[in-house]
Amino acid sequence: MFNNRIKIKTLLSGDAAGQQVTVMGWVRSFRNNQFIALNDGSTNNNLQVVVELGQLDEPTLKRITTGASLKITGQVVESLGKGQKLEVKATTLEILGDCDAEKYPLQLKNRPSLEYLREIAHLRFRTNTFGAIFRVRHALAFAIHEFFNKQGFVYLHTPIITASDAEGAGETFRVTTLPFDNPPRTAAGEIDFAEDFFGKSTNLTVSGQLEGELGAMAFSEVYTFGPTFRAENSNTTRHLAEFWMIEPEMAFYDLEDNMNLAEAFIKYLIGYVMTNNREDLEFLDQRLAEEEKQKPQAERSEMGLIEKLEFVLNNNFERITYTEAIRILLDSPAYKKKKFKYDVSWGIDMQSEHERYLVEKHFKKPVIVTNYPKDIKAFYMRLNDDGKTVAAMDILAPGIGEIVGGSQREERLEKLEGRMHDMHIPTEELNWYLDTRRYGAVPHAGFGLGFERIVLFVTGMTNIRDVIPFARTPKNCEF
Amino acid sequence: MFNNRIKIKTLLSGDAAGQQVTVMGWVRSFRNNQFIALNDGSTNNNLQVVVELGQLDEPTLKRITTGASLKITGQVVESLGKGQKLEVKATTLEILGDCDAEKYPLQLKNRPSLEYLREIAHLRFRTNTFGAIFRVRHALAFAIHEFFNKQGFVYLHTPIITASDAEGAGETFRVTTLPFDNPPRTAAGEIDFAEDFFGKSTNLTVSGQLEGELGAMAFSEVYTFGPTFRAENSNTTRHLAEFWMIEPEMAFYDLEDNMNLAEAFIKYLIGYVMTNNREDLEFLDQRLAEEEKQKPQAERSEMGLIEKLEFVLNNNFERITYTEAIRILLDSPAYKKKKFKYDVSWGIDMQSEHERYLVEKHFKKPVIVTNYPKDIKAFYMRLNDDGKTVAAMDILAPGIGEIVGGSQREERLEKLEGRMHDMHIPTEELNWYLDTRRYGAVPHAGFGLGFERIVLFVTGMTNIRDVIPFARTPKNCEF
Repeated sequence: MFNNRIKIKTLLSGDAAGQQVTVMGWVRSFRNNQFIALNDGSTNNNLQVVVELGQLDEPTLKRITTGASLKITGQVVESLGKGQKLEVKATTLEILGDCDAEKYPLQLKNRPSLEYLREIAHLRFRTNTFGAIFRVRHALAFAIHEFFNKQGFVYLHTPIITASDAEGAGETFRVTTLPFDNPPRTAAGEIDFAEDFFGKSTNLTVSGQLEGELGAMAFSEVYTFGPTFRAENSNTTRHLAEFWMIEPEMAFYDLEDNMNLAEAFIKYLIGYVMTNNREDLEFLDQRLAEEEKQKPQAERSEMGLIEKLEFVLNNNFERITYTEAIRILLDSPAYKKKKFKYDVSWGIDMQSEHERYLVEKHFKKPVIVTNYPKDIKAFYMRLNDDGKTVAAMDILAPGIGEIVGGSQREERLEKLEGRMHDMHIPTEELNWYLDTRRYGAVPHAGFGLGFERIVLFVTGMTNIRDVIPFARTPKNCEF
Repeated sequence: MFNNRIKIKTLLSGDAAGQQVTVMGWVRSFRNNQFIALNDGSTNNNLQVVVELGQLDEPTLKRITTGASLKITGQVVESLGKGQKLEVKATTLEILGDCDAEKYPLQLKNRPSLEYLREIAHLRFRTNTFGAIFRVRHALAFAIHEFFNKQGFVYLHTPIITASDAEGAGETFRVTTLPFDNPPRTAAGEIDFAEDFFGKSTNLTVSGQLEGELGAMAFSEVYTFGPTFRAENSNTTRHLAEFWMIEPEMAFYDLEDNMNLAEAFIKYLIGYVMTNNREDLEFLDQRLAEEEKQKPQAERSEMGLIEKLEFVLNNNFERITYTEAIRILLDSPAYKKKKFKYDVSWGIDMQSEHERYLVEKHFKKPVIVTNYPKDIKAFYMRLNDDGKTVAAMDILAPGIGEIVGGSQREERLEKLEGRMHDMHIPTEELNWYLDTRRYGAVPHAGFGLGFERIVLFVTGMTNIRDVIPFARTPKNCEF
C-alpha cells in the first residue's frame, strides 16, 4: 500500500495542527531552499512544506524543481507566513519523479497564454486556471446528476452511433468499417452499406432527444447526459465538433412546466458550484477581473463573475414571446440607428447580435424566448393554436447566447405527421418515434443544455476550447 | 402549467390518506370496469384507481385500455384490496391518449419474451422487467458519480473521437466526413486524410485511460464515465459495439491501493442499489427465480439474486496471483478429468471456462487475479521485478467473468519506452502520454469497469442487450 497520504484540500480545511501526516504532490515553487509550495490538484491552494536548512543534501535540493513530484512526511504546524493557516514541517522527503526545469513547458517565467496552453492541453490541468475550470466542470456534472436524481428522473444512455438524424439538420460524422479503397458496391454501383458493420449507413448522434422521448413515455421523467457531434466546419470560440449535452424529457409537462424546470435546473447548478467550489470561483473571478482590465472601458463587463452568478441566482429569468422580442428589437435605438448587421422582422432566426441586445442591453439578465415561428424550428415542436408558431423556448444567457433550447413536443399524431410531411422527413424511418403518439400519447416537453456553454457561463471563460479537456475542432484532434 | 401530479412512488410510500391528488400515468390493466392499475414509471407498483360503477359513460370506459394514458384527480383512501395500502377514488378522469388494444404490441395475453422485447426496445421500458432494469441502471450510474465525488475524484470527459488507439489492440470504427465516391487522394494514390474533417485519420475511442492518466497527473484522482466502442464482429450475450465504461486513474496508488479501491467501489454500488432500489431488486430476484425454475437442477444458481448481492457485500474478494490461479486450475478435478476445452499452462490467457471455474466452483465469490504474464497484457502495465509479470489485476465475478481490468501503470520512462518498442507501438505518436513520465512522474494505477457488466451482475440478467437502452451489435443499429 502506497496511498496513505492526506489530500491537501482536506488538510488545509481541517484542524490537523500537531498531527503527523504524509502528503504527496507536485512542486509549484521552491523558495530559499526552504519553502516548497506543494499542489496535489485537490485545490489551487498550495501546501507550504518547510524544509530545514541543512536537512537535505545539495543534489536533492537541486531536484526540487517546479513540476517534480514529492512524497513528504512531516508534522502539521500553524503557519507563521501569510495566506495560509497551516503548513507542514518535513521530517522525510522523497522525490518520486524529477522534472527537468530546462524542458518543462510550464517552467515559464511569464504566465503562459491560453493559446499556448491549448497546444499543451495534456499539461494545462496543472495550472491554477485549468485546475479551477475542471474542478468546476466536475462539480457541474455532479450537480446535474444530483438535481435529476433527487427528482426521480431516470438517466438514460441514448445511443451514440445511430442510423437516424434527429434534427433533420446538422452535418454528421459517418461511422464505418468499410474500406475507402474498393468499397463494396451494389449491382447499381452504389456504396453497399448493407456490408457495413451495422448493415446500414450510420453516423454519430446529434441529439438523444427522440430516444429520450421513448424513455419519458415509460418513466415519465428521464434525462440524457452524453457526447453529441456536429461535423460543421465552424472555427469559432463557441463551437466544438464533439461536445456534451444534457437532454431532459418529461411526460405530463407543458411549455410552462418546461421553462420552470429549466430555470430551476440552471439555478441549482449555479448554487451548487457557489457552495462547493467557492475557492475555484474566487480564483476565476479574479482571473476574469484581471483580463477585463486589459479591455477598453466600454467593453468591460458590468459585473464580476461571482456577482453575475449571484444575480442570476436571485432574479427570475425574463420570459417573453418571440413576437415580443421582435417588437423590442424593432423599437430599439440599435435598430433605429441601423447598428444591427442583420435585418429584423417577424420570422427571422435571430442572430447573435439580436440575442445579445435583448439579454445584455435590454433586460440585463437571462431571457426565455417562447413561441417561435414554426418555419425556423424543428418538426417535433408542438404547433400553437395560431397555426404560425410552435411551443418552443430558448434560454439566452449574458455573454453566451443560447444556453438551452427546448419545446413542448407535438404529441398529436396527425399534426406531427403533417409537419414531417411538410418538412420532407420520411415517416417510415421514424415509425418507432411515432409509436409514442400511437400508444398512450401524453403532453410532454424537454430541452437540451449544452454542457460546455454552462461551464463557460459559470467559469467566465470565453473560448469553448478552454472548458473541455481535449477539444475537437476542424483539423484538430490531438491527444 | 400542467404538471401538478404526484408521482405514484411518492404517493404509495407516503401517508396521503384523505388528500386530494392528481395522478397521471398509463393503464396497466382495467378490471370489472372499476379497478384501474395505473403506472407512471416511478415504480413497478401500480396505483389502484377506483372508478365508481356508473361514473363514466360507456365510450369512455371502452377507451380505458392497456397502454392508454390518463389524468385522474381523486381522493387517496386506504385500500381494502390485497397488496396495496392506499388507492385513489377517482373524482375526475381524463383520457390523455388512446391506445389501440388491437395494435398495441404490449397488449399480449402471454408474457412477451425478452427476444421479442428486444425488437420493440422503444416500448419495452413500459414492462415491469425493463422498468426495474433501467431504474437500477440509473441508480448504479448515480452511485458511481456519488462514490467518486465523495472522495474528491474529478470527472473527466475524455475524447470520443480520437486519432490514437489506446490499447494498441481492438478493431475501431472510422469517423469520417470523406466521401466513398472519389475520396481525395495523395500524389501517391493513398487516401488523403489530410482532407478529412480533423486533417487526419480518426476513430471512435476504445478507452479513455491514456487521457485519464493526463488528468491524474494534475488532479491526483480522476475518473471517466463515457461510451466506448469496439468494431468486433462478435455476436454474443456479452459483447456490444457501443458500451459505457468507467475508468478511474489515480496518482500515488500501487496495485494494492488499486484493488482496495475497486473492491470498495463495487461494494458501494451494490450497497447503494440494495438501499435505494429494494422493490426493483425484489422484482428482479423473483423474475430470476422463475427463470431458474425452467432450468435443469444442475444448472440452477445456488443463490438468489439478492442473496448473491448480500454475499458479495459481506465477503472479501479473494485475491490470488495469476501463478496461483494456474496452479489451482492444474490441480482441479476439471483439469484432471479433461473437462476444460482449452489447455492450461503458465502463460495462457485464461478462457472463460477457467475464470468460471475459479470463481464459481473453487472460490464461489469474486476473485481478483493479479500479476499476469506481461506478454498477454498491455504495454502500459507496470513490469514487476521478476521481469516476467506485470502489476495487472482483473476482477472476475460469478456469472459474468471479467468485470474489472486494471493495473498499476508503468511510470518509469525507460521501461515504458522499452515495452512500447518491444510491442511495436510508435513512441512519437504518444509523446504527450510519455510526457507524464518525463515531468513529475509518480506511481499510479487505474482500472476499467464495464458498466453493462455491473448492470448485468446486479440485475441478474444474462444478455447484455437487455441492460442497455438501445443495443448496437453487428448488423443491428435500430432506433
